[in-house]
Order: sequence, then structure tokens, then C-alpha cells
Amino acid sequence: MKLATFVIPGKDAQPGVLTADLKSVVPLGDVYSDMLALIDAGEDGLATARARLAAAVGAVSLEQVRLLAPIPVPQNLRDFHSDENHMKLAFNQRRNIIARMAGESDPAPVDPSTIEIPAIYRRQPVFYMANRFSVCGPEAEIPRPAYTKFFDYELELAAVIGKKGKNISEAQARTYIFGFTILNDFSARDRLFEELQNEFGPSKSKSFDNGTAIGPWIVTADEIANPYELRAVARVNGVARPETNGRYLLNSFEKMIAYVSESETLYPGEVIGTGTFSNGSGLEIDSYLNVGDMVELEFEGIGVLRNHIVASSI
Amino acid sequence: MKLATFVIPGKDAQPGVLTADLKSVVPLGDVYSDMLALIDAGEDGLATARARLAAAVGAVSLEQVRLLAPIPVPQNLRDFHSDENHMKLAFNQRRNIIARMAGESDPAPVDPSTIEIPAIYRRQPVFYMANRFSVCGPEAEIPRPAYTKFFDYELELAAVIGKKGKNISEAQARTYIFGFTILNDFSARDRLFEELQNEFGPSKSKSFDNGTAIGPWIVTADEIANPYELRAVARVNGVARPETNGRYLLNSFEKMIAYVSESETLYPGEVIGTGTFSNGSGLEIDSYLNVGDMVELEFEGIGVLRNHIVASSI
Repeated sequence: MKLATFVIPGKDAQPGVLTADLKSVVPLGDVYSDMLALIDAGEDGLATARARLAAAVGAVSLEQVRLLAPIPVPQNLRDFHSDENHMKLAFNQRRNIIARMAGESDPAPVDPSTIEIPAIYRRQPVFYMANRFSVCGPEAEIPRPAYTKFFDYELELAAVIGKKGKNISEAQARTYIFGFTILNDFSARDRLFEELQNEFGPSKSKSFDNGTAIGPWIVTADEIANPYELRAVARVNGVARPETNGRYLLNSFEKMIAYVSESETLYPGEVIGTGTFSNGSGLEIDSYLNVGDMVELEFEGIGVLRNHIVASSI
Repeated sequence: MKLATFVIPGKDAQPGVLTADLKSVVPLGDVYSDMLALIDAGEDGLATARARLAAAVGAVSLEQVRLLAPIPVPQNLRDFHSDENHMKLAFNQRRNIIARMAGESDPAPVDPSTIEIPAIYRRQPVFYMANRFSVCGPEAEIPRPAYTKFFDYELELAAVIGKKGKNISEAQARTYIFGFTILNDFSARDRLFEELQNEFGPSKSKSFDNGTAIGPWIVTADEIANPYELRAVARVNGVARPETNGRYLLNSFEKMIAYVSESETLYPGEVIGTGTFSNGSGLEIDSYLNVGDMVELEFEGIGVLRNHIVASSI
């Protein structure tokens, strides 16, 4: 099933289940106040959604609603940094941006295939905790912060935690995943490469209103056998980057969940992002986002997450 | 006023206001379901607490209740790294721990007064986003994670955001502070110094169940003229470290709020920590926490935040 959070004009946001043709949504707001309540209900929530979908009770055309992020405010939002090939492909541009910020010319490029990523990435998953209030949904406008000249998108897959757990083994981790969705971690590259000098991780480079888009809906875990094989593509103004998938991820969601849950309880409604896929950012090709740009991230079996870059209000 | 969250055995947690002798708490749970609701109520919330306190309606002895963290699950928890003197005092021990983990002997110590902190700390505030679900309150037991040999406390002051805001100027920032409390950011130093190599900040070194203690209550902002001058002291098993205060902080709460809120909305119930004060950790004196230890952090005008180190259940 595909589960969305949506607004019928004049009414409160509510969860719902998409019809098979993806043209309508069956409301579930009379049973579950929001997506977190539906997730918390466990098997009952899924059974209710399945029964309502089968009966197609009160289906509303998507043209008459506005989709929000499937979880408008996640309980937590951890974004990992897992794609080895992306790190290699982005290596030269990172040095270029640092040089340009210092008024210097780009250094001589290094062959990406010869680059060694930091050893810690092979020893443990690496993530930062994002601002859960920065989340927005499909079609949301993303104000480009006034403080960046190198604004970028990040093509990522995300998993939604479905039940409470601690010290979860890698073998058991899959049962803690409620479903999958698409995540775009918009990033101010110039600020990022400056902030990464501080050892404590990204801040303003990734935390700003509407800085993380999620959606367009959650696909329940039973529908996705292997999330790392889903074909994925990023498009800016309709121009597609090469097709990609999760084959270069150093860590599976199962590894990430096992890592995070050691001595630490995970809760339903927390969201985990893979980090940028290869061919999943403008950085890799030294191309950045301008006001007016449209960014589309598409995953086979999930859908398209589309957002629009607008000027910052300040 | 001093505002706490507490539990009367057999009842739900609720907010309340401490009596002047700090021996009892006046319940507010019939008006506000939790501290967030009280904060959201703004001036009305404070006026209600003030009136109830004056009438001392239904005051309950602290001996009959259990205090929780004043905000049991903050909306967000940002912990800064602001005390220049602490960074200098901890410099040698950081190198020692890294050497010990590698089976090497401690390197020759450097005179802390000659150490230069990384330049970025003078250009901008530095923080990481903690796991808001790791928060616990006064007297809570802190399970020492099985994966650390260098477990430590951190003496910090915290501010609670009282109202929603964005692009808040440093001059206006004080009006966004609802109150102050004490924060202990328990840390696994060996894991921390390994994780800081990954550029994306701390993870398991600071994120584990009950890893951040907050309390014992919130002192409303009107009662604290200059939070950086409050005398503070850390004690382990009753043995006090030298008295300290916030005079070495590179950033005021006002600067932190202005920094974070640029292009990013802050919400009531978010918590900001200063980072470790000088004389505020065992790291500075190469002394770490053992199971059975009692840690007390005391701030003049606020109170004592006491916690107990216990063995991890795994």
C-alpha cells in the first residue's frame, strides 16, 4: 500500500491510502488522527487501510487535495552518509568549492577511482541528526537560503521506523521498517564544507525551513523486496541524471538500525535516510540549483518527489 | 518561578510550580497536560502558575513525588560546544585516549594555555543535534553503555525556547528564552574521539538511553539576570571540582539563537545546551565514571541535578 498525508481544502491534514491507479486517496482521518497514529496502531492500522482501500470508501481525487510529507514532523530524522561512489564522485568539487570560497582557482582534479574514503566509513555507519521541523512534502517550495551560492539536492531513499525497539539485531531490523519513501536533503554546499571543519557535523548547511523534502507517500515494507535495487533517477528542470540505485551503499538500513539501536531505543515515526546516491546530486557534476528550478527524484515502485526552488523571503 | 514535571505515584506526569522553600510542588496538570502546553500558553501559562503558587492550592511534598526532566521529550535538543577553556583543558586527554585506544602510551602533554582552538569556533557557533528521546531527569539512573571505557559527565547550562520565531536578532533573542535549567550530556569519550573523525558529528558517543539528563526544573527567565555569571560546580561522589561559571563561553544563548534561527524556525519546547563548562568534565582531569558513581551538577539560582551511573542491561 501507498500511505499519504493530505489536506482537503478547509479541513485538517489526515492520513489516507492511495488507490491502485494513484489517482485518488481514500481518507483514514476518521480512524487515525495522523500518520503516527496509524503507524502506532501496527497491524490493525494496516488492516484498516487495506479494508478501506478494498471498499474505496470516499476516495478523493488527488487533484482535489494537497499532499504533505507522509510524516509532516518525524519523531527524529537521521540522515546517513553511505554511498561510497557518491563520496568519490564529489571529492573534486568539494575541493573546488573550498578554493572558490577562498578566491582561489580550482585545484587539479584527482581521478575519482583512485580516491580512498576515510577509514571510519568502513568501520561504522555515519549519520547526522537533522531538524525534524525542516521537513516538507511533495510540490513544496524550497526557499534557497540567502547565505549560499552552491545550493544542491540529494537523491536519497528513506525508511520509516514502524515499532519501538532497542538493541535490534541486523537480522531482525527489517521487521522494524514500516515502509519506504523518497528523501531530498537540500544542502548549501559552501556552508557544508565550512561546517565540516568543526567536527560536530552540518548545521545551517542542511537545517533551514523546508530543507528536507519527503514523499510523495510511504510504500509499505511488504511491497519492496529489495530497496537497494530500485531504479532511481534525479531530474532538474526535466533533464535527467544517469539512472542509479543503492548498489554503492556501504550500509543497508538493517545495519543502520542495528547501529543506532545499540543501547538506544528507536521509536515509531522516526525516519532514516541513506545519504546521497551516486548520480544523486549536482555537486558531482559541478552544477547547482537556481531560483525557479524544479527538482524531481524518482524511485521505481515508489513515485516522484517534486519540489520547486524559490527565493528566500529574507 | 521554578517549573517542574513530576509524577504522583499512580497518576500521569504533570507540570507544576515549586513552592518558595523548594520542598513542595503545586500541581498544574488540571490546566496544562504537560510542560509544552504550559509553555505554549505563553503569558497565560505563567500567570496561572503564579496565581496557583500564591494560593498554594494542593501543594504536594517533593518527598511524595518523582521529578522527571522538566520537558521529558524536548521538541529538539541542540547541544553547542562553546567553552574555549574547556576545549584547551581537554586537549591533552583527547590525545591520550586516542593513544590508549591504539595501545600506545600517552603523548607528551602540551601546555593548555598555548593551544589554539580551531578557527571556525570564532567564526560561528558549533553544535550537534542530540536524540531528544535520550533525555532523562533528576535522580535518573544512567546505564553506562557497554561499549565505552571512558564514560564522562558534562556540566552545562540549558535554555528552553518559549515561543516560535525565525530570523531572530541577537538583540531580540532573550525574549525567546522561556527559562533555564541544568544539562548533563553524558559522553563515551573513546567513541566520541573516534566518531569526530567522520565529519558528521557525534553519534553513539552521546546518543544512548538516558544519555542526557535535564533538570531538576526550569527557572523562568525573569529570575536570572545574567546566566553566564551563575556559580556552578560539578561533584562526583561528593567530591567537588573547582567552582566555575560561563565566563569562557564563546557564544551567548542570544548568539546561538540568532545563528540557528537564520532561515529556520525555532519552536517552543526546543532546548539548547551551552556545551561543557571549564571544570565541567572528568576528561579535563583524566578521571572517568564508574558504575555506582553519583554525579551532581549545581548551578546557583537553579538547583542540583543528581544522577546515578548503573551497569548497562546488555
